Amino acid sequence: MTRLLLTLRYNGAAFHGWQVQPNAVTVQSTLQDAIEQLTGVRSGVIGCSRTDAGVSAEMFCCTFDTECPLRGEKLLAGLNAHLPREVAAYAVTEVAPDFHPRYAARGKRYVYRIWNGRQRHPLWEGRAWHINRSLDEKRMNAAADLLCGTHDFAAFCSAGSAVEDTIRTVSRAEVTRDGDMVTFTVEADGFLYNMVRIMVGTLVEISEGRLTESDLTAALRTGNRELAGRTAPPDGLILARVFYGEGE
Amino acid sequence: MTRLLLTLRYNGAAFHGWQVQPNAVTVQSTLQDAIEQLTGVRSGVIGCSRTDAGVSAEMFCCTFDTECPLRGEKLLAGLNAHLPREVAAYAVTEVAPDFHPRYAARGKRYVYRIWNGRQRHPLWEGRAWHINRSLDEKRMNAAADLLCGTHDFAAFCSAGSAVEDTIRTVSRAEVTRDGDMVTFTVEADGFLYNMVRIMVGTLVEISEGRLTESDLTAALRTGNRELAGRTAPPDGLILARVFYGEGE
Repeated sequence: MTRLLLTLRYNGAAFHGWQVQPNAVTVQSTLQDAIEQLTGVRSGVIGCSRTDAGVSAEMFCCTFDTECPLRGEKLLAGLNAHLPREVAAYAVTEVAPDFHPRYAARGKRYVYRIWNGRQRHPLWEGRAWHINRSLDEKRMNAAADLLCGTHDFAAFCSAGSAVEDTIRTVSRAEVTRDGDMVTFTVEADGFLYNMVRIMVGTLVEISEGRLTESDLTAALRTGNRELAGRTAPPDGLILARVFYGEGE
Repeated sequence: MTRLLLTLRYNGAAFHGWQVQPNAVTVQSTLQDAIEQLTGVRSGVIGCSRTDAGVSAEMFCCTFDTECPLRGEKLLAGLNAHLPREVAAYAVTEVAPDFHPRYAARGKRYVYRIWNGRQRHPLWEGRAWHINRSLDEKRMNAAADLLCGTHDFAAFCSAGSAVEDTIRTVSRAEVTRDGDMVTFTVEADGFLYNMVRIMVGTLVEISEGRLTESDLTAALRTGNRELAGRTAPPDGLILARVFYGEGE
């Protein structure tokens, strides 16, 4: 039995998130079906995170144990032939039998896109949050800076999460603008449930004057969810990178 | 009666091209429906080009005559409320009663994307041509250079076109690579039917050694369609820009 680390891309619009759930098509169940079709054996797949419905991934890592002898492009091409067009694997490597794609991850990068044109953008539909009031990306970027460092992010975590330790280290948080597209990029050693989407909601409310930078620092200090902004929609969010090992 | 010049974006995957045809959803018919719903009067819409099924536009210009007093963002928002998510207007201006969006265009820019990763890319599905054999973008770019200038592009025009004058001036034709994405950008004063897609097919066949640069120059010299490459699929093609006036 060998544990394989598989790297995927998927279009979140087509799935009810990563994790298997009854009566819904998820990336995990779709992938388990494809592995079973390719290898003849059903194998549980463990993911590097639990992306929500509507959230896409440019890089998502997961593991499964198999006795299938296929490796490299033969395995990838075989698997992709059994996967729908909204998901595809592009890398595979053997890892140690105790390798866990979530615990082994040193960090992740998420990107959140806001289409800030006056009218909606048909080519970014479902892949960016449309806000037609002009955003102040400089103010948002200054506020994003306050998120950097090691903090208790309890205020940036949706209710219903069972996580006890809500301390995370954010190593990068920046807001940039390219024409009418405003992009938030954030890297951390780990993310709480809905953390990026609450960060985005908070930055937008700061841009619009409904929240201030002091509210943000108070939210970090007190862990009070009420002080942070609303949860931004899933559409604009993409898991861009998972970091393993030191050199990456 | 005032003639309005409307600028749109649309996702070509949702339409059977621009032009009205029986029993098919086209951008033109969809737009005419929305104008009728907004203004109460059916009005013919004239486009700047006839994009094929599957071809998208970042900028597509069209005109219609109306007595509707709405202008600017009121007109755009009203129209977009009646348009499906795959198409939206983002600019409108009044033009002279004899302004024709095709004849007035000084030129156009098309962009064609080829996803050149080994495995397919779920987030570029339907928006890029997937070629998994490694392309030589330097060779393609050198060949693209030969397309620049004023030539008879009859060899780069699909049969069935009724156009008599097949001479066009290409002012820019270049192939660039960003990771696994290979992009062809071409600007000309006008384009023949399937011209960009035949150019792309030809450049790909040159990269793969099935055609040579001499075949391309012979195609330009003789107008023989057989000497050019096959027509690339529509998915990767996008109308990126329409140029009016001198300053743009």
